[in-house]
Amino acid sequence: MAELEFIAWIRAQTEHAAGVAVGPGDDCAVLESAPHPWLITTDMLMEGIDFVVAEAGIRRVGRKAMSVNLSDIAAMGGRARFAVVSVSLPHPWSKVQAEELYLGMRERADAFGVSIVGGDTNAWDGPLVISVTALGEPGPHGPILRRGAQPGDWLFVTGPLGGSLAGHHLDFVPRLAEVATLQAHVKPKAMIDLSDGLAKDLRHLCAESGVGAVVCAERLPPRDIGVSLEAMLGDGEDFELLLAVSPEDGARLMQTPPIPLWHIGTCLGGRELLLEEQGVRRALPAGGFVHRFG
Amino acid sequence: MAELEFIAWIRAQTEHAAGVAVGPGDDCAVLESAPHPWLITTDMLMEGIDFVVAEAGIRRVGRKAMSVNLSDIAAMGGRARFAVVSVSLPHPWSKVQAEELYLGMRERADAFGVSIVGGDTNAWDGPLVISVTALGEPGPHGPILRRGAQPGDWLFVTGPLGGSLAGHHLDFVPRLAEVATLQAHVKPKAMIDLSDGLAKDLRHLCAESGVGAVVCAERLPPRDIGVSLEAMLGDGEDFELLLAVSPEDGARLMQTPPIPLWHIGTCLGGRELLLEEQGVRRALPAGGFVHRFG
Repeated sequence: MAELEFIAWIRAQTEHAAGVAVGPGDDCAVLESAPHPWLITTDMLMEGIDFVVAEAGIRRVGRKAMSVNLSDIAAMGGRARFAVVSVSLPHPWSKVQAEELYLGMRERADAFGVSIVGGDTNAWDGPLVISVTALGEPGPHGPILRRGAQPGDWLFVTGPLGGSLAGHHLDFVPRLAEVATLQAHVKPKAMIDLSDGLAKDLRHLCAESGVGAVVCAERLPPRDIGVSLEAMLGDGEDFELLLAVSPEDGARLMQTPPIPLWHIGTCLGGRELLLEEQGVRRALPAGGFVHRFG
Repeated sequence: MAELEFIAWIRAQTEHAAGVAVGPGDDCAVLESAPHPWLITTDMLMEGIDFVVAEAGIRRVGRKAMSVNLSDIAAMGGRARFAVVSVSLPHPWSKVQAEELYLGMRERADAFGVSIVGGDTNAWDGPLVISVTALGEPGPHGPILRRGAQPGDWLFVTGPLGGSLAGHHLDFVPRLAEVATLQAHVKPKAMIDLSDGLAKDLRHLCAESGVGAVVCAERLPPRDIGVSLEAMLGDGEDFELLLAVSPEDGARLMQTPPIPLWHIGTCLGGRELLLEEQGVRRALPAGGFVHRFG
């Protein structure tokens, strides 16, 4: 079962509901409220899929579970405020281990002023499962969606790509601070966080915006020496932001970047996604992987 | 590891945070917002702990996952509004099976005007895990907490008890409609939903309120013929509401009950929990079970 197919089915099922400004299918849903709407997102992480406890250590796993959710708030241009957490702990776990998991979540939450306000703690014979739901408020320009990019817009990423599984996927810091600074300078027209890999996530942003794009291979920033073009396009879990801004804003950002930014490409008319390498354009490889961590 | 001990630890960790009216430890957390605060709750359900798919059928499992969360909103006197859902589906599942799960959740959500606004769908080699987070708004009297009961208050339950595992735990309807009707007549002083069994949940309500209580064995409503006193006290997953009201309100409710209500006991000074059977009072058996479904 392809996840995208199922999500499309859910979206088709979900008619426009009262109080819902943005429903399923973006990084967060947007709930109408005063004095500002609420952003809400949820992510479930599972042993063997998103982490291996024995390799990562419990605290880093907790940190990741919080971070991936806060990254979704960042991808909407938001400020994270609250989280609730539900977990299924393996039966042999002690209270100290449970606390360690929670302290990992707290570490990331505290760093961004996020309060963990509730949760549900379970134990079972199965592997560790963690589900976090995060709530946030939009930034000064309101929620930044995946749709909104137009032909000619410049595409930026906020950091290096590829090879995340060497450790970055556990230790990354969600781009909440950067996105706040960025929005003091420009209004991103469309934004997404890179969880499935640049090729796939660019596809999402472009599909939602109804545009095509060209990505320049030479401009992609590798995380480390030896990270291939393929890895930069296809590896997941970068948790950097991919954003589109107007050409005017793009030029301003390049002149005095308020945060680290890489100008990696441009939106096009039509729907094609292209990779330009040494001046030659070809179809962007589908890339990405269907689910995280293998 | 005892769940209560861990929750107590989490509560000790969680200092009073900006924007949080009620933190972990009640049926929902309460987030300050305008024009009304938000109630938020999360519950995770796992194969073999909360359900057995092969026995229950997928749709009923989805329904239960939504219902247990809506029951927490009801326990605060609230109106449920939104939900997000994250799931880990067993690898062999087809799209049709995933849809069936979602339709079960939708069935309950739709019945109460709740919009499923987002989610996270994963697949793995492990058993089915579902986590739902529900958001709601408080009722006319504001959030009804577990604390607030006073000596002399009357204790009511909204329906029969015990033997839930015969099917009720999958099919129950969260008491959202009843609690709305009830609050048009009285303001409950304290309330909780019966998930861990009457004995344990009464203990929670009394501990939070700083009162004792006496429960009258003869007044407890059994779900079926053959449901023992022990089962009424100790079985979990009734998902009825237990509430305390002033004696004046209690007497009014008994005269013309706006919803089905059983007057099962009275709050006492001190901290003792007592069971009165044929006029004789003894300590209420600890009862309840540490985690749902065995």
